[in-house]
Amino acid sequence: MSDVLVDIGMSLDGFIAGPNASPQNALGDEGHRIHQWMDNIEGWRERQGRSGGETNTDDEVVREYFTRVGAYVMGRRMFDEGEKGWPNPPPFQAPVFILTHESREPWKRQGGTTFTFVTDGIESALEQATAAAGEKDVKIAGGANVVRQFLEVGLIDELQIHLAPVLLGDGVRLFDHTSSEPIELDITRVIDSPKVTHLGYLVITEK
Amino acid sequence: MSDVLVDIGMSLDGFIAGPNASPQNALGDEGHRIHQWMDNIEGWRERQGRSGGETNTDDEVVREYFTRVGAYVMGRRMFDEGEKGWPNPPPFQAPVFILTHESREPWKRQGGTTFTFVTDGIESALEQATAAAGEKDVKIAGGANVVRQFLEVGLIDELQIHLAPVLLGDGVRLFDHTSSEPIELDITRVIDSPKVTHLGYLVITEK
Repeated sequence: MSDVLVDIGMSLDGFIAGPNASPQNALGDEGHRIHQWMDNIEGWRERQGRSGGETNTDDEVVREYFTRVGAYVMGRRMFDEGEKGWPNPPPFQAPVFILTHESREPWKRQGGTTFTFVTDGIESALEQATAAAGEKDVKIAGGANVVRQFLEVGLIDELQIHLAPVLLGDGVRLFDHTSSEPIELDITRVIDSPKVTHLGYLVITEK
Repeated sequence: MSDVLVDIGMSLDGFIAGPNASPQNALGDEGHRIHQWMDNIEGWRERQGRSGGETNTDDEVVREYFTRVGAYVMGRRMFDEGEKGWPNPPPFQAPVFILTHESREPWKRQGGTTFTFVTDGIESALEQATAAAGEKDVKIAGGANVVRQFLEVGLIDELQIHLAPVLLGDGVRLFDHTSSEPIELDITRVIDSPKVTHLGYLVITEK
């Protein structure tokens, strides 16, 4: 059975992108500071078709995540912002289901990435992604509003937060009035690395 | 030379108290979830005049902090909310400097806690607290708006964040548009404990 996970970089003050994000400025102003621990990671460079990079604890975390994930769900805005910027092959190398109101033909790219456009809601997108993932897990890729929609209805099993040592001051919050009720988590792992802290949680569902 | 530190519990979604905080509800609705890791810590119970409790990693963190801190700076609202609730002797056992616009005579309590009311601004309060702390450190106790004021002018050396595994959903944020510029941090320690993650940072001052 697939797990549904969120795996995302966040600043200590809760931002996953800086302000003024756009297709030309996908991470927002100063948003690169959230992700700078990944800049020189071999496993991440490989996905972007670049050689070189470091093999360290952070690299192991990135590789583990790519190994786990068999399909993605993504919001339309995140797709639009990334569409022009991703290389071909894109870094996903797996099916990606885009939540949108406009239907569009699937867009097949090199390396195993196919973008499929889903117009009938988040549960349908998750069902399709789960079927596509097989034994692997499904990642809710973002943006923040999409993560919040899945959290609100109790469809997230696991959070992997890569907490960057920076106070960004402004931008796009991951958790912004997520839910009307508190959501309890179990800490599953904490990996202390020089440039980032990798935090794993299970969402405790009270039923 | 004293360090100036912030040492505070925060939910994964950035809240240090729940909504609707008041003197009768000092932690706000559901805010106890942020601090529940401390409920049964021996070193914290001692400070409240209660016996018993656990001695574990969390207890060591709490005791270390009490040993380090020689004086406190606190906002008026936090004082007002706590004033009726603190036992006598209060848990501080050190001088506490309250930022206020109304002058008031110092209020001496049992066990080494004296509340001194400072009407001429945050830098004056910090000077007085630093002098009172001697070789020990000064804690900016809160609330969030006071922490932000000190951060904005570059007067915080160190953050110790006790990150609770809960999404509170609403309440009082610690970091809410802290600064117009990003503030870079150095990770100094990460302590993985079952109910909380203790995160230590130095504030990098770019001059």
